[in-house]
Amino acid sequence: MNRTNTIEVPTLLLDEKKCRLNIHVMAEKARNNDVIFRPHFKTHASHEIGRWFREEGVEKITVSSLRMAQYFASDGWKDILVAFPVNILETDLINSLASDIDLALLVETPEVVLMLSEKIKSELSVYIKIDSGLKRTGVPFDDANAVNEILTKVKQSNLLSFKGFLTHAGHSYTARSREEIAMIHNRSIAGMAELKYRFRNEFPELIVSVGDTPTCSVMDDLSMADEIRPGNFVFYDLMQTIIGSCSPGQVAVAMACPVVAVHTERSEIVIYGGSTHFSAESIRTASGMTVYGVVVGNGGEGWNGVVKDAYLTRVSQEHGIVSMPADMIGNYRVGNIIKILPVHSCLTANLMKEYLTTDGRRIARF
Amino acid sequence: MNRTNTIEVPTLLLDEKKCRLNIHVMAEKARNNDVIFRPHFKTHASHEIGRWFREEGVEKITVSSLRMAQYFASDGWKDILVAFPVNILETDLINSLASDIDLALLVETPEVVLMLSEKIKSELSVYIKIDSGLKRTGVPFDDANAVNEILTKVKQSNLLSFKGFLTHAGHSYTARSREEIAMIHNRSIAGMAELKYRFRNEFPELIVSVGDTPTCSVMDDLSMADEIRPGNFVFYDLMQTIIGSCSPGQVAVAMACPVVAVHTERSEIVIYGGSTHFSAESIRTASGMTVYGVVVGNGGEGWNGVVKDAYLTRVSQEHGIVSMPADMIGNYRVGNIIKILPVHSCLTANLMKEYLTTDGRRIARF
Repeated sequence: MNRTNTIEVPTLLLDEKKCRLNIHVMAEKARNNDVIFRPHFKTHASHEIGRWFREEGVEKITVSSLRMAQYFASDGWKDILVAFPVNILETDLINSLASDIDLALLVETPEVVLMLSEKIKSELSVYIKIDSGLKRTGVPFDDANAVNEILTKVKQSNLLSFKGFLTHAGHSYTARSREEIAMIHNRSIAGMAELKYRFRNEFPELIVSVGDTPTCSVMDDLSMADEIRPGNFVFYDLMQTIIGSCSPGQVAVAMACPVVAVHTERSEIVIYGGSTHFSAESIRTASGMTVYGVVVGNGGEGWNGVVKDAYLTRVSQEHGIVSMPADMIGNYRVGNIIKILPVHSCLTANLMKEYLTTDGRRIARF
Repeated sequence: MNRTNTIEVPTLLLDEKKCRLNIHVMAEKARNNDVIFRPHFKTHASHEIGRWFREEGVEKITVSSLRMAQYFASDGWKDILVAFPVNILETDLINSLASDIDLALLVETPEVVLMLSEKIKSELSVYIKIDSGLKRTGVPFDDANAVNEILTKVKQSNLLSFKGFLTHAGHSYTARSREEIAMIHNRSIAGMAELKYRFRNEFPELIVSVGDTPTCSVMDDLSMADEIRPGNFVFYDLMQTIIGSCSPGQVAVAMACPVVAVHTERSEIVIYGGSTHFSAESIRTASGMTVYGVVVGNGGEGWNGVVKDAYLTRVSQEHGIVSMPADMIGNYRVGNIIKILPVHSCLTANLMKEYLTTDGRRIARF
């Protein structure tokens, strides 16, 4: 057992109960909407947490790289979508995975489909990436010609099959209310539905796959999609509380950091915990402050509610500076552990490389 | 041999010749100024690169955590400063290191010195952290009372010895010219010299330790310091070229990333390589653009000069978007490798976990 009172260095705490509840709620919502639940596993990137999804009936998953697909295939996952434009340089790995599991890849140009069809040796399916407004990657949803060019190449291959249209309405992350999220989702899903309608005769099985945590958390009605792929919801984070996707009580991870100096005169605490632990990602609070995390109360092995006006306001590589209300600073001493909800749990978990559950188990990750 | 033409995934390339030259130039500057060269090893964090310093005569080093001290002690380093406020929760590790090597720690409050003196079992030395304007950690340089309170506690301990005053003029990172850097350095070093003068009778051996890459790169005269601790210069990066610490030709690391999509119509390339590889740190160019890296020409196993107006302009976790001049976009194809100088090599190297040298060797890091 590794109890939190033996923590010596920055440590990522995981509350298993909250995490399992987040998984359950999203799985239930997918069932109620009769949509396929293909959660994105990049946030947790862990065999053990993956098994918690399996216990909720999940069989199909999404990952962000072929190597992550390999990691989860090695734990028995048989239906994996790599939601990242095909990296043609990894053809050997594509072939090895496709011979073993139901592998789905993401394409956005005819050129890549052609390269892929020349190199693959086993059947695999492709989703076409549609840009529903984020302008990062993908075919604009109203560009039926580009879609047709891609589909032509897919049909010319004996080993490729077309699965459907996929989008990531990542601009929902700029939303700051349920109404804004709903607006972004409705616009995005309308474009996808139009595409599906256009190609439904030729491909009666084609599906529309959408996925982002704000949309899937906030919308009750997801039934216009066929498949959802949220990922971050497994932990949530400070950003999601600011967007409005969750309450702070639903956030399932917190950083535990040693206090190394207390500067009463400027009401600041120096912690061991910086951008190499939290990441350099910040967010603006409603009051316009740029913060890297929010302090929560120490609650035994876990943590309590948010401490009002106590934020991680600066990070360098190993240090963090926590600004505290003047009447709170007296509660902290050098050698204490301070707990902080991170801005972006995906990046923090990626840097921290393992979890310490609040009941004292260490969980490894990819 | 792992030649760069076998790269399949985002890879951090290291040009050993440039790196060794960076080390040599700084070691030479320290010798010319007759100051102790105690380079910060957090940037490279690698046994092998550490040995390149040893070949330049370096015997004293700086690290950013006790665990990193342990990593380098295991490779034979015997004089290590942990330039981070003492983390009192790691007393066991402090004791184990102090019994084995010359360990120096950083203190900034009397409270910590008292805690430390109650817990240590071997001799070790302390530097007092002085805030020379960064306002992150440390005692303000003009607060002689605070310094005296700390020194009183140090003198009460049989095992602690006072080594000197240490500062990190990290605000030099906001400078954008040699003149600004010189101004920041001169102000900082003047405050440190004043402190030294005040305490020189009681502690005739005390030293003033300064260190940051911009100052140590740009200033020819560092003789007012007794010790310098730059770290980033071992690789440099885009940020340092913008500050003016180095030319792009001195940058010794570059990311090599697969091209996964080319969008000619918007003159953008999608690469495999995002914030989990480069970090989420950005910088504003002189023309006001926010960028995460700058494209360099492919030069065989290494790389060539900067490609004009070609920047990594957006990153998500795994993706990056490179904006190219319209007349250049035709040179890039899916499946190519594109090479990019990162904004902040410390964070990029920390995320990438290993180096591939341009002559094909993989080098591990802490």
